[in-house]
Amino acid sequence: MKNSNKINGGFPVEQCPFCLINSNEIPNKKIYEDNYSCVFLDKSKDVNYHMLAVPEKHISTILNCDSKTLNHLMNAIQIVSKHCVECGFSGINLLNTSGEDAGQSVPHLHIHLIPRKKNDNIDAWPNFDGSSVSTEEAYNLLKIN
Amino acid sequence: MKNSNKINGGFPVEQCPFCLINSNEIPNKKIYEDNYSCVFLDKSKDVNYHMLAVPEKHISTILNCDSKTLNHLMNAIQIVSKHCVECGFSGINLLNTSGEDAGQSVPHLHIHLIPRKKNDNIDAWPNFDGSSVSTEEAYNLLKIN
Repeated sequence: MKNSNKINGGFPVEQCPFCLINSNEIPNKKIYEDNYSCVFLDKSKDVNYHMLAVPEKHISTILNCDSKTLNHLMNAIQIVSKHCVECGFSGINLLNTSGEDAGQSVPHLHIHLIPRKKNDNIDAWPNFDGSSVSTEEAYNLLKIN
Repeated sequence: MKNSNKINGGFPVEQCPFCLINSNEIPNKKIYEDNYSCVFLDKSKDVNYHMLAVPEKHISTILNCDSKTLNHLMNAIQIVSKHCVECGFSGINLLNTSGEDAGQSVPHLHIHLIPRKKNDNIDAWPNFDGSSVSTEEAYNLLKIN
């Protein structure tokens, strides 16, 4: 059944909020749109000018995104980031989560954009607690031969 | 003078630490490398398995990165992210800063990779303080016509 086509433990595709924003079936504030991607304002109100860049296609994460779609998404991010600079910003933070265990809440690939200015009182770097794994241990586990 | 060719207010290219890692002129732990990009372990010890993906070319930020270089960089990130899943991780966080005002410390484009597992006690989301700008105001400023 099409309705049971759940991806990444999340919503059926037909109920994916980002698919419904892409198709304008739910209200949205799109900053930019082309045939492959769009960038719209996040509704969370957690930080000023928070935007999300998403592909038109329902793809759950960067890990399973085809290169054409990912390249178009990055191009959209470049266009919007440059536009932010034209609008008076002087920096951009990008954030992305892949998988629920990384904090991904909507299983449709999305890259967060936070435009920045000098002395804007935003700290966009996570509060990490330090590393308990040695560099050698990490290297031995992760090295691709 | 070549030595005065400073980019983004940072180091001369000849002293860029990520260029010197690319060329193996300073010690490093490369996880992955191809002709266009490499991924190596970050030295900050702020969070377990912290990696950085950088282009071979000295490019300061995503905003001024040519599409070929950016596409290769994203491909390297996909390869390493999939490898992390094969190594037992179940999620990935990506973080990127463009510009000093966004917190960029080294003016050579780099994307942070943090591999994640369930209950790893890592919080990779920044502690944002809320938005003081209305959605309408943000939309009117940022909308690309």
